[in-house]
Amino acid sequence: MDQLTKNKANSTPLTPLTFLDRAAIVYGDSTSILYGDSISYTWSQTHRRCLQLASSLSSLGIRKGHVVSVLSPSTPAMYELQFAVPMSGAILNNLNFRLDDKSLSVILIHSESKLIFVDILSLSLTLNALDLFPSNIQRPDLVLIEDDTLAPYQIPSLPKNVSVINNTYEGLITKGDPNFKWIRPDSEWDPITLNYTSGTTSAPKGVVHCHRAAFVVSLDSLIDWSVPNQPVYLWTLQMFHSNGWSYPWGMAVVGGTNICTRKLDAPTIYRLIETHGVTHMCAAPVVLNILLNYNKSEPLRNTVNVLTGGSSPPAAILTRAESLGFNVSHGFGMTELVGVTISCAWKRGWDRLSAVEKARMKARQGVRKAGVAEVDVVGANGESVKHDGVTVGEIVVKGACVMLGYLKDEKATAQCLRENGWFYTGDVAVMHEDGYLEIKDRIKDVIISGGENLSSVEVEAVLYMHPAVKEAAVVARPDEFWGETPCAFVSLKDELKEMPTEKEIKEFCGEKLPRFMIPKTIVFKDELPKTSTGKIQKHVLRKVAGEMGSLALPPPQLLSSRI
Amino acid sequence: MDQLTKNKANSTPLTPLTFLDRAAIVYGDSTSILYGDSISYTWSQTHRRCLQLASSLSSLGIRKGHVVSVLSPSTPAMYELQFAVPMSGAILNNLNFRLDDKSLSVILIHSESKLIFVDILSLSLTLNALDLFPSNIQRPDLVLIEDDTLAPYQIPSLPKNVSVINNTYEGLITKGDPNFKWIRPDSEWDPITLNYTSGTTSAPKGVVHCHRAAFVVSLDSLIDWSVPNQPVYLWTLQMFHSNGWSYPWGMAVVGGTNICTRKLDAPTIYRLIETHGVTHMCAAPVVLNILLNYNKSEPLRNTVNVLTGGSSPPAAILTRAESLGFNVSHGFGMTELVGVTISCAWKRGWDRLSAVEKARMKARQGVRKAGVAEVDVVGANGESVKHDGVTVGEIVVKGACVMLGYLKDEKATAQCLRENGWFYTGDVAVMHEDGYLEIKDRIKDVIISGGENLSSVEVEAVLYMHPAVKEAAVVARPDEFWGETPCAFVSLKDELKEMPTEKEIKEFCGEKLPRFMIPKTIVFKDELPKTSTGKIQKHVLRKVAGEMGSLALPPPQLLSSRI
Repeated sequence: MDQLTKNKANSTPLTPLTFLDRAAIVYGDSTSILYGDSISYTWSQTHRRCLQLASSLSSLGIRKGHVVSVLSPSTPAMYELQFAVPMSGAILNNLNFRLDDKSLSVILIHSESKLIFVDILSLSLTLNALDLFPSNIQRPDLVLIEDDTLAPYQIPSLPKNVSVINNTYEGLITKGDPNFKWIRPDSEWDPITLNYTSGTTSAPKGVVHCHRAAFVVSLDSLIDWSVPNQPVYLWTLQMFHSNGWSYPWGMAVVGGTNICTRKLDAPTIYRLIETHGVTHMCAAPVVLNILLNYNKSEPLRNTVNVLTGGSSPPAAILTRAESLGFNVSHGFGMTELVGVTISCAWKRGWDRLSAVEKARMKARQGVRKAGVAEVDVVGANGESVKHDGVTVGEIVVKGACVMLGYLKDEKATAQCLRENGWFYTGDVAVMHEDGYLEIKDRIKDVIISGGENLSSVEVEAVLYMHPAVKEAAVVARPDEFWGETPCAFVSLKDELKEMPTEKEIKEFCGEKLPRFMIPKTIVFKDELPKTSTGKIQKHVLRKVAGEMGSLALPPPQLLSSRI
Repeated sequence: MDQLTKNKANSTPLTPLTFLDRAAIVYGDSTSILYGDSISYTWSQTHRRCLQLASSLSSLGIRKGHVVSVLSPSTPAMYELQFAVPMSGAILNNLNFRLDDKSLSVILIHSESKLIFVDILSLSLTLNALDLFPSNIQRPDLVLIEDDTLAPYQIPSLPKNVSVINNTYEGLITKGDPNFKWIRPDSEWDPITLNYTSGTTSAPKGVVHCHRAAFVVSLDSLIDWSVPNQPVYLWTLQMFHSNGWSYPWGMAVVGGTNICTRKLDAPTIYRLIETHGVTHMCAAPVVLNILLNYNKSEPLRNTVNVLTGGSSPPAAILTRAESLGFNVSHGFGMTELVGVTISCAWKRGWDRLSAVEKARMKARQGVRKAGVAEVDVVGANGESVKHDGVTVGEIVVKGACVMLGYLKDEKATAQCLRENGWFYTGDVAVMHEDGYLEIKDRIKDVIISGGENLSSVEVEAVLYMHPAVKEAAVVARPDEFWGETPCAFVSLKDELKEMPTEKEIKEFCGEKLPRFMIPKTIVFKDELPKTSTGKIQKHVLRKVAGEMGSLALPPPQLLSSRI
């Protein structure tokens, strides 16, 4: 028995790139991509175009291990590049087109990108970023992605210090060889993607994933969401965002129709849903908010399955979503884990619960997907926390979804990929009695007030219940006496008849929270600062709160009453 | 970039055993198993029972790498053992309970099985097999699986030379520790199963699969068949048959309800379908035949998805199946590939075809599942055949589904796991223009009777033992019920005092072969057709047998009793 081990046939590297060859056979005549009024491809065409593009990349000198960057919203080109770049042997570096030029240049330099595909609307940004390169550092070559669906535009004159490939995106496709043999990875551990974590911290970290991770996550993400054959999938999630949670590759498995769009406003999204009969979409909470705050009176004609991640959707949002015809699933993931890793798998027994109880269940992050080996919530010494819904610990993960590491950052890599074999997420959660976990906070978002850990997320959840509150973020304000106190930044809904006062908000919180959790400071803002992916930038608010300095000392009797 | 490679967290071995822990959390309160009128378990109970059983196996001295055998139809115990045996670290050896004692003893000796779980109705067979062990060879310990749903029975007295564990199956479960930490594989390449491809040969081939194969196939088999969450799955496929095509593990992923049954006659199957609202079932073609030839006037209340393999279903069968409410999918697999590897993925465009055309499309074996790396049809020099639907070649496969090899059989392993990196299936097919393949013939003269592969060479070997037989050749005779039955062409020795009858020859075979391998037709010939070099021309005989047509139909009740 010991003599039997892996052989050439069964150790063929696991890679999502094999999905596309198959899609061309099975779904060859079915629609792969729809975009605007004029662009419609079949899976056979998508397959051919990707091969041609990969072939052209090879001709341009792109080799195994090179980094190729892409700066684009979720257009057809963006979709094709998810396959074409790794099919050329290169590592796909999806970039956030909402970055500023400084951040973009830092990332491009760090990644040592050889070539960058740039959507026409991101050209100026890219040129500015390239202009910030020190003169001794090689700039990536630039390929322009034009877009006929846009209003007529002028291509700006290109500076001399930028090496622009003398061909557009479409030109490279036309020129490429449709019989190109795409470059298979030597090992399934070879890198396939490089993603930079969005800037909630100042120094971006380059997350590297391998072919095996992309393969396993693509499959188990389809199963976890029960995606049927040939869904109609709307790209309300930016593909650059953690590789579209693996669904660009997954759509090739099930032969879905990818509805591409660069606009993510409510009228556009609702129009696309109705026109194309969208069945599935992923969305950051902010996109879900946009949809639900839009004045839509008629419910959807057909159920649309929505998968959302990031912060947990408040009960009010979920109830509104369901009433419109959205079937909302909720998960937890991170770039380091190729998208959704833990999801709130629905239990049949919950069907019988009240709407509020249902929402409470659904707001929990849940359990690992079947393809993830292990997930736990652990205390400081690595011990599993009690399954009591109260004891907090850090979420840790084992499985094929875990990244290879951070590019050129051994220290950060070692911090989360520990010697004990676990990946540490940096997220704080409790484990409920039924084995579902619920995130309480990012570790750095925990506020320690008078020695008590308090979760900013819980305080935020209460603030969101207030009828006048649009958005809320709670951070620590330094305090001479308490160490820290919770400080809430709040934006209010438009067209309010009456503006709530600071006192009213505090009293509202006091009805639902223990006294030590009531924000001691309320700051009203027109708009909260956000990252390009729509996440509230707590580090900005934390800085503001830090500069406020300490509150006046409370009287001692208040202190004792708190404990 | 080169410094980033696999780490402890992401190289946690892929194994289907992690599915069960998760099922206990997500589907804890949902039904996992239904059997007869009295047995109903939840996923939480199944999880606990499997842990307890694995714990007891450990207590009995079962260790990593030991082989543990199971001889049972698809009962709850059989299902539990699919998890419990590998959870103890052992290798699961599912055995065909229709084998004869001689074949069973050969396999048990070859596998070096340490312990065998035996269904009460297979006890006599097992005892006879153990009795055939040479005295110097260690017999496996025996655990009896009792069954309260059967009519009262007497346990036969057990011979002294058999080491019977002093506890029944249920006793071992009761005794086990529900908090047992199941034994994780050291590597995903560690063996998880050992299956014998043909139960009856003097040189049996033991197919060994690893945890990784079982994991990947479980996931991609769910996707390929679009299995939704919480299906109701009827065990019309024997679980011993190529590990139930991975669905025992797959059901834990989606929290399905396993409807177990030991009877596979039409009334029972239809009753189970209606009673439990069955949504999915796998079935050998013979089971499908039984269902469709049964006099059922009313169509099914709900669509039942049927996955069938082996010989391709004729158009008439498919049409009848669809009219009753079965949605038939068709695939190709083999024990060496953990079940279905190639399936006839339905194309939307086919919806518009005529019933006959649809059936023609569906009868093709199809394309690889998304989780399989590569499939091709190749000529003698390894070159891909033309996609013309005419040129034949051998089906070759690469991917995680490919076995580790044959146990203690380097020669047979090397014959199919070639140096060029491909697994050679031994099946001859054409590739159609659209990339779907269709099997034309078998290289090794395998006859598929009732879903069981039987080797004509083995039957011939027995015929040759008969003192009156000069020459023998066995080929497939088409059969409406069984797909094929073995048909023997025999020439007799000269100067015989007494000519044997057809009945005598069959009885002679019956003493040495399991029932399904006994030739159902014996044709006496003065001379068998031969090539100039003296080789029997089987293709000539195959044509003769083909022209005989199907045997007279056995009455359905007789048929079902034989399964």
